[in-house]
Amino acid sequence: MQINIHQTHHTIGDFDAIFTYLKNITENNKNSSELHVFPELFLTGYPLQDLCLQRSFIERYEDLLKKVNALQDSSSPTLLIGGLDYEMDEDGIPFKIKNVIFEFGPKGLRPIYTKKLLPNYDIFDEQKYFSAGSENCIYQFEDKSFGLLICEDMWMSSMHSTDPVKELFEEVENSKIKLDGVINLSASPFYLGKDKTRLIRSSEISKLFGCPFIYTNRVGGEDEILFDGSSFVVNGAKVTHRAKFYQQDILNYILEDFDGERDLEKALNDKVNSWESLFKANIIRNDNGDYRLPELSDEDCEEVLQSIRFGIQEYAKKSGFNKFDVALSGGIDSALVLAIMKLSLLEDQNLEAIFMPGFFSATMSYDLSFEMCKKIGVKLSTFPIKFAHSSLRNQYNDVFKDPMEGLCDENIQSRLRGAILYARSNQRNSMVLNTSNKSELSVGYSTLYGDSVGAISPLGDLYKTEVFALSKYINKKYGNIIPEGIISRPPSAELREDQEDSHSLPEYDVLDTILEGLLSYRLGTKDLIEMGLDSEEVSKVFNLYSRSEYKRKQFCPIIKIKAKSFGTGYRIPICKKN
Amino acid sequence: MQINIHQTHHTIGDFDAIFTYLKNITENNKNSSELHVFPELFLTGYPLQDLCLQRSFIERYEDLLKKVNALQDSSSPTLLIGGLDYEMDEDGIPFKIKNVIFEFGPKGLRPIYTKKLLPNYDIFDEQKYFSAGSENCIYQFEDKSFGLLICEDMWMSSMHSTDPVKELFEEVENSKIKLDGVINLSASPFYLGKDKTRLIRSSEISKLFGCPFIYTNRVGGEDEILFDGSSFVVNGAKVTHRAKFYQQDILNYILEDFDGERDLEKALNDKVNSWESLFKANIIRNDNGDYRLPELSDEDCEEVLQSIRFGIQEYAKKSGFNKFDVALSGGIDSALVLAIMKLSLLEDQNLEAIFMPGFFSATMSYDLSFEMCKKIGVKLSTFPIKFAHSSLRNQYNDVFKDPMEGLCDENIQSRLRGAILYARSNQRNSMVLNTSNKSELSVGYSTLYGDSVGAISPLGDLYKTEVFALSKYINKKYGNIIPEGIISRPPSAELREDQEDSHSLPEYDVLDTILEGLLSYRLGTKDLIEMGLDSEEVSKVFNLYSRSEYKRKQFCPIIKIKAKSFGTGYRIPICKKN
Repeated sequence: MQINIHQTHHTIGDFDAIFTYLKNITENNKNSSELHVFPELFLTGYPLQDLCLQRSFIERYEDLLKKVNALQDSSSPTLLIGGLDYEMDEDGIPFKIKNVIFEFGPKGLRPIYTKKLLPNYDIFDEQKYFSAGSENCIYQFEDKSFGLLICEDMWMSSMHSTDPVKELFEEVENSKIKLDGVINLSASPFYLGKDKTRLIRSSEISKLFGCPFIYTNRVGGEDEILFDGSSFVVNGAKVTHRAKFYQQDILNYILEDFDGERDLEKALNDKVNSWESLFKANIIRNDNGDYRLPELSDEDCEEVLQSIRFGIQEYAKKSGFNKFDVALSGGIDSALVLAIMKLSLLEDQNLEAIFMPGFFSATMSYDLSFEMCKKIGVKLSTFPIKFAHSSLRNQYNDVFKDPMEGLCDENIQSRLRGAILYARSNQRNSMVLNTSNKSELSVGYSTLYGDSVGAISPLGDLYKTEVFALSKYINKKYGNIIPEGIISRPPSAELREDQEDSHSLPEYDVLDTILEGLLSYRLGTKDLIEMGLDSEEVSKVFNLYSRSEYKRKQFCPIIKIKAKSFGTGYRIPICKKN
Repeated sequence: MQINIHQTHHTIGDFDAIFTYLKNITENNKNSSELHVFPELFLTGYPLQDLCLQRSFIERYEDLLKKVNALQDSSSPTLLIGGLDYEMDEDGIPFKIKNVIFEFGPKGLRPIYTKKLLPNYDIFDEQKYFSAGSENCIYQFEDKSFGLLICEDMWMSSMHSTDPVKELFEEVENSKIKLDGVINLSASPFYLGKDKTRLIRSSEISKLFGCPFIYTNRVGGEDEILFDGSSFVVNGAKVTHRAKFYQQDILNYILEDFDGERDLEKALNDKVNSWESLFKANIIRNDNGDYRLPELSDEDCEEVLQSIRFGIQEYAKKSGFNKFDVALSGGIDSALVLAIMKLSLLEDQNLEAIFMPGFFSATMSYDLSFEMCKKIGVKLSTFPIKFAHSSLRNQYNDVFKDPMEGLCDENIQSRLRGAILYARSNQRNSMVLNTSNKSELSVGYSTLYGDSVGAISPLGDLYKTEVFALSKYINKKYGNIIPEGIISRPPSAELREDQEDSHSLPEYDVLDTILEGLLSYRLGTKDLIEMGLDSEEVSKVFNLYSRSEYKRKQFCPIIKIKAKSFGTGYRIPICKKN
């Protein structure tokens, strides 16, 4: 039997494209005895959040269901499609929304399974919107039996009170059915390291049921959240089939017999996806005996690079941009953003850089920016802000009789740059890429409406030490496109004389370790101090972090790379006592 | 028997102040036979969101619990206190967090009831953090019996699968207990009209159990969310006791017998707090037969005014500001913000206004701003942006060989104003009040990083027509502090020649009606057109609304006035197809 795994890639709510895809499949596979499997919520896209409550969205979705139903005739192939099943009250208001698998085939479209485990941690709010199912589904197709799961259903943890894998297994055991496969329809967001965890868990489930585990994931960048695809079949201990990373794909899989050793225990007892393991602080002890954030490996860097490239392009495509602007400062963050964007650029796209020197910009900042742009062939415009800065200083003094100085004088430079960058963006309808990193964002070392501006943040989930690692990786792979001088110079905002990050912050490897501990929610200041980190530095970082929440609330979407990121999945009040 | 209802007001996580309050109560009430009742989550504050997962927060909270426990001796009075009860796993990681009522008294501190209904709609994410209880609590104190509830427990709806009032009632009936009171510990956010709903529901519950209903609410402004206090006792059909609106207070209530007619049906069948009734579109048919947003009554305006004043002051106090800046444009939004701030100003606080005229600012804009500031005694500084605008125009042309025009030329004015306003804010450490309204925010009629800047938005939950109503109310009550010319002139952004909102948007009463329909999620474009609204206008507004999500994602916290507001409780993806 052939099972076609459709790793699809559509915009949320793009019902025309979704319908066309289904239409093509059904028309090209008449009287076929193959099974077609689609991702979770293929029919709508994911995550929808409040969109699934909006009347106009629901109406358009119900129209789609009617059109899909109308595709059906006696020659229709059989499809398993993820979608929403609405139960309306007498006023036409949804009071139950279920995340289901529809079977589409000669009998039409009908829901056959409802997702049991609704993730409600971190970026997930499914219990806010969806009603959980309670029934297993052992799906008969031709002469085969399949266990069906939707995404989170494959996991277990102390966070969840039900265990769908266990429940399915008990039914299989009790009714003495031999499953020929377990099929999981997923919309599973990417983060670094998740793929490995998925494969381990899938292998456990394959060994539990003694059949292949067939996993269909979607592809897409939804604001900050990426879906990497990477659909697969795992048979026992082996990954036998694999779909592409961040690309629409189809796996034509001929169902195989189980190949490996059964294990009736592991899958039922391994808490791999527990809250605890998902969000632990990623800190290890290095050769010097110090606790530190581990360095990104080359493999990690490659995965991160592809993820960021995909995330930017998705946002651009969906927002209708084919031009990009990056403000270069001569520092490593903006240089890395420019490098990544250059590497990501499609044929019909255009990238420009702007350098906006002020009174405190080193000559080196221009030289390095110029060198880089020349090397990679990006147009660089230089727009000095000295004149505007100076004239605003004078005018400010005249108006307020109070000389512009200190933070006031620092931040106006950053905000002038923001205004000029966005003027350029407005003029040429380009997308501005933000250049902040996670360390900066964590301690509030950026100017609101200044260097913190942008449509999307490519580096906002990477600590400064990881920005360095990724820059070095790119230089190694693509021939030193970031000048060495940018990598080796001490980081500075260049908003006042002799400003250097290291004068007011711990060294970045220490800072990033403290932040990883705090942001994981797993380590408090006491724990970090017990681990040997300097208590003054820990307290200072904790205070900077706690007081800068207001800046993060007004920040743009950050491409999510880690298990725990700022953005939708991070919710801390601005006002509180520490 | 005396029951003391403590309507408290503390900052989230301010464990010192919380402890001091409890210490004073216990020390001043030794050997007392009175009962003291506190709000939901008095011990931590609310809403905590991810804060309740943070290790440092948990450690500080556990310390507080130890200190509170140590207050206990055989002479301790009895307190019912809302707090969190953590269950930790072997690694000290919370795997169950319960929202409970602690009894504190001669026996120490012990949890006696766990909240059953965890709200998980709109701004609420309680199922994300808390584990629900399943047991009723009939609490015996002296010779009296009390039914205990926590906030949402008093409501029922199709959103919830359990009904704590019903469950409590069944236990009371089965065990033939006569309750002497029902006590509800709440942390119930304000929105316009909620108080009435609370009182109706409370009366139903009082009539169901045949005893007084005692309701303790907290006071506080938590970023966007306000808690108004307004604690009360309802006995049958009557509100017999009432605490202050937005002020810490204590009600010393002598428990009374039930006074009224029992009703054993209503409370069990009335779906007042259903999803459907909470979020219905507030649209009525006016005398002309047109569907329109109803006008705010004077009573509404007074409630809104007090709420905004409280919300601003709370944010200022918790963020450490005692100075405020408002950018005046000569239009109604900024004038209203200035008027409200002036009315809110405390003795040690200072308010300044800045007027930043550009090439397209009418003379009238200055005259009206000047007139207003003079009348209310606010210092007005005039900072023309013409020079900076003009010099940036020239420089832009030099650098990019592309004259600054259109949106580019419009927005740079707004962003220059943002930069200057924030320079002033940085210099004098003042808080910038945003001046956007809900209509503008909905259709994206503001410049990101320009007029959309601010620490908090006082008007972001009021439609433009409501901005007019509130302005007129303030003028009536406080003697025309907003010049009539500001109210009567046609709204304009003044970013280009002859710009008027009405040239590109429907009339505001129509716009606001369409928006109320869409934002409630209850009416789609089809419904609005069926209600007689112009189909072109409806489509235009829907498109503007859908495409401007990216601006709202980077907006500051909005003081929440309505059941459905932008902010935490509003989650719509930026990228999607409509």
